[in-house]
Amino acid sequence: METPILRMAGEPEDSNELYIKREDLLPFSMGGNKVRIGEAFFDDMKQKGCDCMVIYGSRHSNLCRVLSALCKSRGVPCVMICSHEDGEEQEITNNTLLVDWTGTEIVHCRKQEIAAAVEEVMNRQKARGMAPYYIFGNKYGTGNEGTAAGAYAEAYKEIREYERRRGFSFDYIFLPSGTGATQSGLICGKLLMGGEASIMGVMISSREYGRAREVVREGVASYFEKTGKSLPEDYQKEIHLLDQYRQGGYGRYDVRIEACVREVYCRDGVALDPVYTAKAFWGMKEYLKEKQVEGKKVLFLHTGGGPLFYDYLTKREKASL
Amino acid sequence: METPILRMAGEPEDSNELYIKREDLLPFSMGGNKVRIGEAFFDDMKQKGCDCMVIYGSRHSNLCRVLSALCKSRGVPCVMICSHEDGEEQEITNNTLLVDWTGTEIVHCRKQEIAAAVEEVMNRQKARGMAPYYIFGNKYGTGNEGTAAGAYAEAYKEIREYERRRGFSFDYIFLPSGTGATQSGLICGKLLMGGEASIMGVMISSREYGRAREVVREGVASYFEKTGKSLPEDYQKEIHLLDQYRQGGYGRYDVRIEACVREVYCRDGVALDPVYTAKAFWGMKEYLKEKQVEGKKVLFLHTGGGPLFYDYLTKREKASL
Repeated sequence: METPILRMAGEPEDSNELYIKREDLLPFSMGGNKVRIGEAFFDDMKQKGCDCMVIYGSRHSNLCRVLSALCKSRGVPCVMICSHEDGEEQEITNNTLLVDWTGTEIVHCRKQEIAAAVEEVMNRQKARGMAPYYIFGNKYGTGNEGTAAGAYAEAYKEIREYERRRGFSFDYIFLPSGTGATQSGLICGKLLMGGEASIMGVMISSREYGRAREVVREGVASYFEKTGKSLPEDYQKEIHLLDQYRQGGYGRYDVRIEACVREVYCRDGVALDPVYTAKAFWGMKEYLKEKQVEGKKVLFLHTGGGPLFYDYLTKREKASL
Repeated sequence: METPILRMAGEPEDSNELYIKREDLLPFSMGGNKVRIGEAFFDDMKQKGCDCMVIYGSRHSNLCRVLSALCKSRGVPCVMICSHEDGEEQEITNNTLLVDWTGTEIVHCRKQEIAAAVEEVMNRQKARGMAPYYIFGNKYGTGNEGTAAGAYAEAYKEIREYERRRGFSFDYIFLPSGTGATQSGLICGKLLMGGEASIMGVMISSREYGRAREVVREGVASYFEKTGKSLPEDYQKEIHLLDQYRQGGYGRYDVRIEACVREVYCRDGVALDPVYTAKAFWGMKEYLKEKQVEGKKVLFLHTGGGPLFYDYLTKREKASL
């Protein structure tokens, strides 16, 4: 389903035209980019002849929420491996509550023990006679980069069609960059379908910059390999990653991002969450200011995360009591 | 903006085809029917030359959330009168938190003191040099029924167009019936544009049945009067209200509705809340079973209420700890 692209009110001092693509309105499990990506993983699982899903993410994971709901609605068993950072507070999130509703088993592990946890769960499911599918490939989480990227290579078409209808080109597309799959996909789309926009991933996690770039590159290369298309030699010039707005890493934010959440809701009635979308939106605004970008058409990809918005709303309220 | 109509999975034993119109995906302030209705009130306020909004609702009110956000985004002062039932628990809701974010002043009153509170706020705003607009008309909340109804007279077009595209007619349209405005609007639409569907309001509040019927009737009559169209004599036969599924009244629900919330999420990835949409959805299913309705095409209007879904998700979690 196509999601709308809408003009944002912006601040009075903005000289740029801001637009937002509302992936948060995808009509399944609270929406978000992970709906498209989850569907792509699901199709890939079936193509590979597997009958059981093994998923991985943190307690904030939107992907795990969507995949657990997809599996439940289609009668496919699902196990989630949920990693925790050392010293992270163990508060329950809306996303893990929803994963729990679907009957998905949650296996907890420390951030350093993911590979071992994946291996154990895969072996256990095999011993039960199932053919498990780990969404990220091998136990180290590599080998399946092209699948998730494919979803946004497709979605990029909608942006191109919007540009054609409106008779203009975006100069920039900003989005939160976490796993890198959505960004890889958009880059694939641009390489295949053309377009003027620079695709700008705003890093929201603590992933090391060089590694993050490499993951986006792998996603692009892997999608082209998978689909048998020929990859332009200079494709790496399309990878733009901003690492200066992550405020200490994944899940961390300060009052500037909190103000952004509230301001965007009050100006445009759009809910952003501080872990992903508000951090990226704030980073985008800072970038445009710092680089003195003016008079441009700028698209922000709202990648969803409604449950995290409400985690924040409720937590903030508790804190102020 | 048009919202999608989607086929629902339904339960294996369903012989009816279930569809859902996703008003919850309207792209402003978490969506829902109140986005269309809020816009209609806003336009009416401007037409009447007013410059200050006075709104009324309970702490669960989706309308107040939307109107406060509309006012904030357009620079119009707004005051919310928030009523409380005697003995009602005073827990803060996501909707009142969001109203608070917009800077809307909240005036609390008891359920029996609404008229006095409205009068006081109106007088105070006038004394400050403003021209206040009370959304529901006079201080007793009557006189402006046609405005809200107009929003859904318009939205009914989208249902007719969907029927035309698909080459079939719905047999039923079910929706939660609280204030009655959405139902009045759909009935106006049907009277003006035709259609086969019986429009079934599932009462979710403790409003007395005869009074509820009268309010829906007034909404219809008032819209026709406002627009100068001629009202068919037998229009009252279009009013169908079900009062047997309200489970003790507004905001009350038992395990059957809780099961419905969870089942619909697990089957279709759709979030319903126990105060409005899940109560109506459950009532619809009960009605279809009791009346042995089979082989029909049934549309459910998802009127939104995302913040109430998360109120429930969080509360349920707390209760289970």
